[in-house]
Amino acid sequence: MTQGKTTPPVPVTVLGLGDMGRALAGAFLSAGHPTTVWNRSPGKGDDVVARGAVRAATAEEAVRASGLVVVCLVDYDASDAVLEPLATALEGRVLVNLTSDTPARARRAAAWAEKHSLAYLDGAIMVPVEVVGSAQALVFHSGDRAAYEAYEPALKALGEPATYLGEDPGLAAAYDMAMLDFFYGAMGGLVHAFALARAEGVDGASLAPYLTTIADILPPIAAYTATDVDTRRYVGEGANLAMMAASVDHILHTAKDRGLDTSQLAALKGVTDRAIARGHGPDSWSSIIEVLDQD
Amino acid sequence: MTQGKTTPPVPVTVLGLGDMGRALAGAFLSAGHPTTVWNRSPGKGDDVVARGAVRAATAEEAVRASGLVVVCLVDYDASDAVLEPLATALEGRVLVNLTSDTPARARRAAAWAEKHSLAYLDGAIMVPVEVVGSAQALVFHSGDRAAYEAYEPALKALGEPATYLGEDPGLAAAYDMAMLDFFYGAMGGLVHAFALARAEGVDGASLAPYLTTIADILPPIAAYTATDVDTRRYVGEGANLAMMAASVDHILHTAKDRGLDTSQLAALKGVTDRAIARGHGPDSWSSIIEVLDQD
Repeated sequence: MTQGKTTPPVPVTVLGLGDMGRALAGAFLSAGHPTTVWNRSPGKGDDVVARGAVRAATAEEAVRASGLVVVCLVDYDASDAVLEPLATALEGRVLVNLTSDTPARARRAAAWAEKHSLAYLDGAIMVPVEVVGSAQALVFHSGDRAAYEAYEPALKALGEPATYLGEDPGLAAAYDMAMLDFFYGAMGGLVHAFALARAEGVDGASLAPYLTTIADILPPIAAYTATDVDTRRYVGEGANLAMMAASVDHILHTAKDRGLDTSQLAALKGVTDRAIARGHGPDSWSSIIEVLDQD
Repeated sequence: MTQGKTTPPVPVTVLGLGDMGRALAGAFLSAGHPTTVWNRSPGKGDDVVARGAVRAATAEEAVRASGLVVVCLVDYDASDAVLEPLATALEGRVLVNLTSDTPARARRAAAWAEKHSLAYLDGAIMVPVEVVGSAQALVFHSGDRAAYEAYEPALKALGEPATYLGEDPGLAAAYDMAMLDFFYGAMGGLVHAFALARAEGVDGASLAPYLTTIADILPPIAAYTATDVDTRRYVGEGANLAMMAASVDHILHTAKDRGLDTSQLAALKGVTDRAIARGHGPDSWSSIIEVLDQD
């Protein structure tokens, strides 16, 4: 029996029934929580209603049905518009905003909640819709610690690795943005790698297995890069920034010779050039953070 | 007993005794091959000589000592200068150039070898110096197939996963460049992620474990991206390019708000914008290859 099944059921409300909202409602239902749902435009969520969710006629009715209110909309413009008239109805409940946006927008939403003395958590769902509710689903929460602790068992219905990051309500979005920053850097390089290979007569299927060997070395690199940036000591053992920048330049020229778009590589080359100009050539690659962080 | 130890010893020559050249000579010695070494400037390689390598007085003497001649210098300008006067001495031997450079330079060196009727292989060492010679050391070879097959057991002394990629002598460098293209894209995103996290009050040690979860999803993404680019069908199931480009824009604005350098993200955003302008918004992320490859 999983932890989710031994959790006492608590009434939960889900505001917003897009793909993610319906997945959240489905996960609460699967864990046995009485679930009330509402969506701005009608006609959404028939699937979760068929599974036992109660459809509220108004957002206020939905909020009043539960002690835990989860909102998940397209962005904070949408969630602000839905929540603004609900300040009174939300009193004494815990509001968890799982709408995805920037840390600054999360902190603004938290400030609004604080003005109305509402218990507020801001979260980030780090997995695709189809993974929500599974043991692998990573969901971040930040903000009111007592609110998180009161509802942690219910929130773990969304994903067993639900994680509370701290009192700053911007933290969930900050981790989200930082992880995606790494992800999209890798995704930009990934497709460029396939473009370069194709230009050199190598098909994707031949290259892909070798890209796995690159992905495999990234976790240990992330670990020692963390130490470098936290200590601001960039010890260049083995390959230093100057050597690695020369390698970036090799790739850039190979891509340019083949008529490929080199805007991403040129931007990276510019970063390494500026770091080397500041004397970081003999340091580790991670010293480029001194250029990226311009304070 | 490993395969390396059961391989009959063959005389091997290593030209160039930088860090990598000495590692290559050391690996041949460890596998029991009589090894002759030479370096342009004297005084290098005392360590491998102490381990049994024979130091030749001239490059020509070094070449004439062995049927397999491996050259590893700083770049092709250096290796061309060393090899040019050795065409006659190299006759009837196999030349393996492990100098790291672009596919175009590798093909030029192969054309020179062909002009002199020399058996030529061009390789790429995909691991750091300290890994050379181990079971994990990936080394690519391309060029003359018969030459590779004749010396495959000896070449596996450098790394058990030694791989022959095909007759085109530029292939080893092409795979090298493509893998590094992915690597440096990821490495650019990695350090930017730490910069963004730091700006939002999150230290490196707290973020690093979560970056591992990103690295873990890259191999399956590489596999299906390969299918997309090979078939030129970019089926956007779940997250499509338009949604992912909006996410890149979120990160870009968060970084800009914190005064971080956004040149890499802006370049990536430019690529996604151009792909969307061409109608790829509903397609998968991999459709950006149509913009990167401008043919």
